[in-house]
Amino acid sequence: MLPKDVSDYLDSHRQDHLDSLCELLRIPSVANEKTDACQRAAQWLARRLEQSGVEAQVMETAGRPNVIGRLHVRDDAPTLLVYGHYDVQPAEPLELWDSPPFEPQIRDGNLYARGADDDKGQLFTHLMALEAWQACGGPPCNLKFFFEGEEEIGSPDLEPFIADHVELLRAHAAVISDSDFFAPGVPSITYALRGLAYMELTLLGPQADIHSGSHGGAVTNPVNGLARMVAGLADRDGRITVPGFYDDVLELTDEERTEWDALPFDEKEYAASLGVETLGGGERGFSTLERRWARPTLDANGIYGGYSGYGSKTIIPSRAAVKISMRLVSDQDPAKVVEGFRQYVREHTPPGLRAELKVFTTARPVLLDRAQPAMEAAQTALEECFGRRAAFIRCGASVPVTELIQRLLGLDAVLLGYGLPTDNLHSPNEHFALDQFYRGAKTNAAFLNNFARNWP
Amino acid sequence: MLPKDVSDYLDSHRQDHLDSLCELLRIPSVANEKTDACQRAAQWLARRLEQSGVEAQVMETAGRPNVIGRLHVRDDAPTLLVYGHYDVQPAEPLELWDSPPFEPQIRDGNLYARGADDDKGQLFTHLMALEAWQACGGPPCNLKFFFEGEEEIGSPDLEPFIADHVELLRAHAAVISDSDFFAPGVPSITYALRGLAYMELTLLGPQADIHSGSHGGAVTNPVNGLARMVAGLADRDGRITVPGFYDDVLELTDEERTEWDALPFDEKEYAASLGVETLGGGERGFSTLERRWARPTLDANGIYGGYSGYGSKTIIPSRAAVKISMRLVSDQDPAKVVEGFRQYVREHTPPGLRAELKVFTTARPVLLDRAQPAMEAAQTALEECFGRRAAFIRCGASVPVTELIQRLLGLDAVLLGYGLPTDNLHSPNEHFALDQFYRGAKTNAAFLNNFARNWP
Repeated sequence: MLPKDVSDYLDSHRQDHLDSLCELLRIPSVANEKTDACQRAAQWLARRLEQSGVEAQVMETAGRPNVIGRLHVRDDAPTLLVYGHYDVQPAEPLELWDSPPFEPQIRDGNLYARGADDDKGQLFTHLMALEAWQACGGPPCNLKFFFEGEEEIGSPDLEPFIADHVELLRAHAAVISDSDFFAPGVPSITYALRGLAYMELTLLGPQADIHSGSHGGAVTNPVNGLARMVAGLADRDGRITVPGFYDDVLELTDEERTEWDALPFDEKEYAASLGVETLGGGERGFSTLERRWARPTLDANGIYGGYSGYGSKTIIPSRAAVKISMRLVSDQDPAKVVEGFRQYVREHTPPGLRAELKVFTTARPVLLDRAQPAMEAAQTALEECFGRRAAFIRCGASVPVTELIQRLLGLDAVLLGYGLPTDNLHSPNEHFALDQFYRGAKTNAAFLNNFARNWP
Repeated sequence: MLPKDVSDYLDSHRQDHLDSLCELLRIPSVANEKTDACQRAAQWLARRLEQSGVEAQVMETAGRPNVIGRLHVRDDAPTLLVYGHYDVQPAEPLELWDSPPFEPQIRDGNLYARGADDDKGQLFTHLMALEAWQACGGPPCNLKFFFEGEEEIGSPDLEPFIADHVELLRAHAAVISDSDFFAPGVPSITYALRGLAYMELTLLGPQADIHSGSHGGAVTNPVNGLARMVAGLADRDGRITVPGFYDDVLELTDEERTEWDALPFDEKEYAASLGVETLGGGERGFSTLERRWARPTLDANGIYGGYSGYGSKTIIPSRAAVKISMRLVSDQDPAKVVEGFRQYVREHTPPGLRAELKVFTTARPVLLDRAQPAMEAAQTALEECFGRRAAFIRCGASVPVTELIQRLLGLDAVLLGYGLPTDNLHSPNEHFALDQFYRGAKTNAAFLNNFARNWP
């Protein structure tokens, strides 16, 4: 429940909060660019926490720093860990933005800027809730803040940091606002994320590109061979043929299926939003949402080999490579999937070619406990602030921190996100709806209250 | 038969001839580079012809100019058309050359330079024979010279030029020195070339690259779809599945098979020269030489789509493309093959993707008449100058002019080439063996004599 004074505070400080967020958005904190912008964003956040009476520190890592904040209110109150990330996707291609990515602009009730939604805007809703509670006598629970600066590059330094700071980060529950509503007007809590195994397969043939006229027919062509190997990774029903791939896949429950059937999902609109005439991909016999959320997939993310300039060059290429990622669902183990892929490569590399396999990233799938008290606290807060009970949804993507918090801190985070699917994340003209922004802050504030009250 | 005075002249002018060829080799006449080098090479050749008493002219085309020379000696003598090309392959990658590509250098009896063999060196052997005959009372037949400047870019302006100048080019026989011995010490006449159909197939999926986590499983992936389409172009026996593909394929005769079995061909050496452990590709049930020379093939020459940088990017690419070339044999018709390919694309494009097909090049296969008098004249000349009767061989590549001369001028050219398979054509460190160069010039001189004498 949201106390009236906290709600009033948030209403009367809208312009202040918007101005502050714009300050943060003007810092172009792209994690893999060689500037001091990430350092500046981290310092900005630490100062902002301190202004709200939170003990804050910027902690260095091998890469971008983490910001840690702690506010202890009462020994007998539970502690909530709030995670967010201050780094943003690169803004390129710049020419496709209608206004400069690091000069925030409001148009039609939306705030346009890189990071406006992902994740500075969503992160900032928690700072707003904190400030409001502090202005009204202090929050009802203890708080820890954990703001990362490498989420958009796969959080390479996150696992060792969390493992080294388990005590510092220990809490009774965790909340992450880095996800979306299922649709406008449909508040949602995400309770499962897919895992990932991302690798690159290279096939090596002749020692150099050779003349396809003189030698065509005598030599195994790496591109043709690669095409055969990639094609063979799925059968006619779209089932993936990597040995043992489906062994540990949890089936969807009837309850989940019923819930998903009730979601307002229009396949034609979805297809149109992606610019395709018909949907496809994935396994036959499953609904589109099941294929996106609950089934593992295999996609080639890139392929290259031989001549790619204009016109023709008559060569048999010396090599060809494909980047392949598999999205994994509970209880698939990425290590076992990678081993199965290695076996596939051993068994299917055509004679005359040599295979090389690089594994770039693995991430475990996550399935979060929907029955914990913090989930109910979030449900109630969403209903109060958005006027509709939240849908439980899954997401096909991976958010590595969720699994790390689960595995290393023993917490099933509440994924309480305020983005909309149309916010152009990772794309030009990223934006965040101001209505989602302001209601999100209130929801967070109500969530703290519900969480503290629900605590046994 | 080579008259002694002609032979002596060639022996005593070796250094002169080598110096002259080096002059030509210093002109970096790459057809698709925006320099005046091709113009200079053409002018150089015209002057050189004039110095030997030949009426020469540089004739402009939409692209690079042609050089035409005419020497009329007697009305009752036959006329021989000599074709060559003065343009060369690009020299890149420059860092792999042991000496600069346009600064000729002699090492171990080889002349190293871009174009040393292909085709300036081979072309020049005909200018040497001409000069020698002129110094000894004039050649025994009428001569026409036709030097092109766009062979390495597929001769785009050649067909209209020949069609427009049939009278100018009319002759009783034609000779082209732009081919190889089968092996060192094995003089060879090439009597068949494969044709070509070169195209690019693009598959279009989502309107932009989309997140492979959020959408993986719901959308047909253009790279996976392309892999399936390319893989499906050959069956398990390596037979190409393009509809109607084999309808017009001429089978090899028993005589040819016997001849080829007698060639000194070591599969292991050949595989090692290409840097592969085992040979492969092509159809099961045919020997390696049959697959290279007498069977049609399908090779992907390049493939691209999605992310190809280092590491990972989790996208479903919006498109993917493959360059595919088919080498054709008599009596396949490239137009019919292209139509068959279109049908394959129509029938196999996966739902959710759109296909675009571009046809870049088509060339008909060529099978030349081995029984004509000029062939016998060449055989005898090779035997006289190289001490061994020539082998009749085929070549898996395409030389479009051969087919144009056959179709438009009605002449089956004699492919009298002096290259060796190890000359690094189109590659760094291209070279031409000086022994092949000098003996080649003598062979040409003897060939003129044999050709004139054999003439009915």
